[in-house]
Amino acid sequence: MKISPVPFEQMDQRVRATFINCLSGFKSANLIGTYSNKHQTTNLSIISSAFHLGANPALMGFIVRPHSTDRHTLEYILETKEFTLNHVNESIMIQSHQTSARYERHQSEFEMTGLTPHYHNDLKAPFVLESNIRIYLELREHHHLSINKTEMIIGEITHIFVPEDSLLNDGSLNLERAGTICLSGLDRYHGTKQIARLSYAKPDKAVEEIDESSLNRF
Amino acid sequence: MKISPVPFEQMDQRVRATFINCLSGFKSANLIGTYSNKHQTTNLSIISSAFHLGANPALMGFIVRPHSTDRHTLEYILETKEFTLNHVNESIMIQSHQTSARYERHQSEFEMTGLTPHYHNDLKAPFVLESNIRIYLELREHHHLSINKTEMIIGEITHIFVPEDSLLNDGSLNLERAGTICLSGLDRYHGTKQIARLSYAKPDKAVEEIDESSLNRF
Repeated sequence: MKISPVPFEQMDQRVRATFINCLSGFKSANLIGTYSNKHQTTNLSIISSAFHLGANPALMGFIVRPHSTDRHTLEYILETKEFTLNHVNESIMIQSHQTSARYERHQSEFEMTGLTPHYHNDLKAPFVLESNIRIYLELREHHHLSINKTEMIIGEITHIFVPEDSLLNDGSLNLERAGTICLSGLDRYHGTKQIARLSYAKPDKAVEEIDESSLNRF
Repeated sequence: MKISPVPFEQMDQRVRATFINCLSGFKSANLIGTYSNKHQTTNLSIISSAFHLGANPALMGFIVRPHSTDRHTLEYILETKEFTLNHVNESIMIQSHQTSARYERHQSEFEMTGLTPHYHNDLKAPFVLESNIRIYLELREHHHLSINKTEMIIGEITHIFVPEDSLLNDGSLNLERAGTICLSGLDRYHGTKQIARLSYAKPDKAVEEIDESSLNRF
């Protein structure tokens, strides 16, 4: 089937949003944890737009929509410049999805969904205790994308917590062993099954499957 | 295990890159197809940073590293303002990964990997024939991210090709039925298995699983 050129004008608004959200492929499923001094509260919001931006410095980016349920996430990050990113796993899938409900202003999604805020030493933004891969970031850049009035947040990684048995000594992290799941579109959640790990590609050499049995824990 | 604060300075450069690339979660696996009038050639490059940016207008973004194997992708998009995005499936996984090899300047990865360029009507950028979900985009914005000298490309979707049996009448696209796979880190490829499709979250209502048997094809 082709939809070419795309008859966007003829599509119902919600059908269109559902469709376009599917087109980038599978997406990461993460919970962004924030806090506000001003309002003495916390916020937790599921996002599917987090992306790797670079390893040196260690940067991640994600997109927020200022007029959606993400709006407190943006407000609190701009206030305190710190946030956590926590991988969603199957045991917290429903609670994670529930964080996208439009709660009253300054109600914490931790309280509303039953997910547990977890604080490490003197870090102020809350982690999600039930998440197995938890990352702390400091705000570095904030770009307004005028083309559709969204905001891109860029954070630098300062702290990382991962399960001991998921990290190998070549630096690779086995996300399946950590229980991480992924998303497609607005509402489909998927587990994964590794097909292969492939060798670094070179022009004059065939790509091969990497045998991980020779790798030790980090 | 914790890595807190992260001992980045003590980590080998490649170990560090491998590790940080895993932290955002599962990533989309897409091939970006481009062409150059000036050099009378095409380019094909696997990327894992494509993200949904908005449905109205229909926008996607991705990150390119000007000094990596992506550099021709960036050069050709800036020249011609058009490109394709093609989902990777298991049958072309190895060839897709091979596109990341550092080929000679203006050698086409189509020729080098055996993937088939496919042209639709008068559209100039090449699709990947073996890909089941294929999208045509026009360049809309191009942001230089000075924090790590990467470039963010924003394209608007103009044409879409999807398999007939993967699109439902609510607009949702079943990526598993289309064979789309995902990536983690630099080199792990994963198939997926849907856990659930969840209802739109509301503050006063429990999230439920959506029964898709009542949905028809688009």
